[in-house]
Amino acid sequence: MTAATALAHPNIAFIKYWGDKDPVLRIPANGSLSMNLDNLYSLTKVSFDPELVWDELFIDGQVAGDTAHQRVSHFLDHVRKLSGIASKARVESENNFPTGVGVASSASAFAALSLAASRAAGLDLDERSLSRLARRGSGSACRSVPAGFVEWQPGEDDERSYAKSIAPADHWQLYDCIAIISQEHKETGSQEGHRLADSSLLQRTRVEDAPRRLGLCREAILKRDFEAFADIVEFDSNLMHAVMMTSQPQLFYWLPATIAVMQAVSEWRKSGTAVCFTIDAGPNVHIITLEENSPGVIADLMHIPGVKKVLVSRPGAGVRLVNG
Amino acid sequence: MTAATALAHPNIAFIKYWGDKDPVLRIPANGSLSMNLDNLYSLTKVSFDPELVWDELFIDGQVAGDTAHQRVSHFLDHVRKLSGIASKARVESENNFPTGVGVASSASAFAALSLAASRAAGLDLDERSLSRLARRGSGSACRSVPAGFVEWQPGEDDERSYAKSIAPADHWQLYDCIAIISQEHKETGSQEGHRLADSSLLQRTRVEDAPRRLGLCREAILKRDFEAFADIVEFDSNLMHAVMMTSQPQLFYWLPATIAVMQAVSEWRKSGTAVCFTIDAGPNVHIITLEENSPGVIADLMHIPGVKKVLVSRPGAGVRLVNG
Repeated sequence: MTAATALAHPNIAFIKYWGDKDPVLRIPANGSLSMNLDNLYSLTKVSFDPELVWDELFIDGQVAGDTAHQRVSHFLDHVRKLSGIASKARVESENNFPTGVGVASSASAFAALSLAASRAAGLDLDERSLSRLARRGSGSACRSVPAGFVEWQPGEDDERSYAKSIAPADHWQLYDCIAIISQEHKETGSQEGHRLADSSLLQRTRVEDAPRRLGLCREAILKRDFEAFADIVEFDSNLMHAVMMTSQPQLFYWLPATIAVMQAVSEWRKSGTAVCFTIDAGPNVHIITLEENSPGVIADLMHIPGVKKVLVSRPGAGVRLVNG
Repeated sequence: MTAATALAHPNIAFIKYWGDKDPVLRIPANGSLSMNLDNLYSLTKVSFDPELVWDELFIDGQVAGDTAHQRVSHFLDHVRKLSGIASKARVESENNFPTGVGVASSASAFAALSLAASRAAGLDLDERSLSRLARRGSGSACRSVPAGFVEWQPGEDDERSYAKSIAPADHWQLYDCIAIISQEHKETGSQEGHRLADSSLLQRTRVEDAPRRLGLCREAILKRDFEAFADIVEFDSNLMHAVMMTSQPQLFYWLPATIAVMQAVSEWRKSGTAVCFTIDAGPNVHIITLEENSPGVIADLMHIPGVKKVLVSRPGAGVRLVNG
């Protein structure tokens, strides 16, 4: 029996991934750009064991449901193909944050699984290969492989679609204050949402404009220009939600408190605070700010009706092995 | 001295007007389609009086502010040019609904003003000429001139940009239940908003697709096909708000209760009720339903936190003269 344990952080996208050119290989419609979140993580142990007659999956100590099991087992099939190993595996994964709150646990889970499974199978993949592998489990997982600020080059095929770091975690002390508004499970998950992206007549314009937005966001990060960063991050989030709400069927991820937080953030920004919002496929709002503004922002967020709690993260490292 | 009094209803657009090809003449970027609202009206009396040294404007019994006065006086200059009359005028206008609540008072006010002013000036304009005249005061006012269900043909110039009825008021007993969420004055008015439409990279796609949406909406109304009507009306509203929230600066007209109402309407619709939403440049939600569903819809709306009151209208007549 061979085993390995890995840890990975989820990430928040500043330029969003929405829609696939190839939904099986998860080649995205457009490039995206994100930051790993240091305070949140998935910790995943993989043990290939010749005694097992099928793959086993435990999430936070519980036997996983059929959908999650099939997705992981399918992913392990790919690792077995790459490594030539035949054994079934036991996968034990823990998140230090609740699943289904709108913080993408699939990104950190599949990034950690990629490293743990490949290492347990005897493979020693470089960062690019690991990112490609993680991408096959969950698109945005490829961005949780490299460290800090990360760009996913969309590519046209499996070889060329992977993420790489554009700046290390200590390059810029951005704070991500996640206003948790609902912990209920989403009605339409991201996987299904990606499939609906092309049903919006706005998606094509969004995708064609993506290189411009990536350029602006990359430059703002490299120059630590918060004003420019805030403009493009809010615009990109609004643009993705514009696509969502005009897809067929229409997708609305916002709740009343989502709007309340967006409005509060806009007011703080107008009054001179370095702060902006970005929203994934869920009702929670990620409020990005600088270290010096974070205590005030967190306190003010807690006073908005409908905000249940605030999770805070700084830029995080990439996926790594830990002692199991 | 010559005087005339006219009454006009506001209208709710099912296919929205947003953005101008010519902001001075108010030639719109795309055609639009609306229904007059029978329970709401503006009542406007115009008296041309050689004794007056300037135009006078009273709204709901109060002397109007400078902005409104200038806009109306500029409009009267156009009527004076058309009629050859030189006198200044006294304009007394009343609305039976509060101004600035997100129900477009400018549409009914300028439709009523067009008929009252032109008649007081001795002109006898046909419906098309009246609609063109009203358009110069406020774009959507041209749709409050004809009766019932009305389409505004965008045209390319002043002569060809006017509205006409596609079905009389009694064609289909649609109910518009307006959930009033805020009575505060809007931060960004429609006039300013129209100017921002082209700053969104989505506006071009929205405009190019407009003939398709108009065709679907017109056909749904003519066939009284509520399902098809609801699909295109919600889509068009979402599309306009997608443009608004991606313009520069971004325009968010929604409040938390706006989202709460949209979600409630979506749930009612999923459970089989003939109901849909549409939202103008403001936080209030127009809930369109059929006569048999209206009592239940109104009662349910009143239970949603943040809904201050509900105004109800059926399809209304066009502008007409009344005894002053």
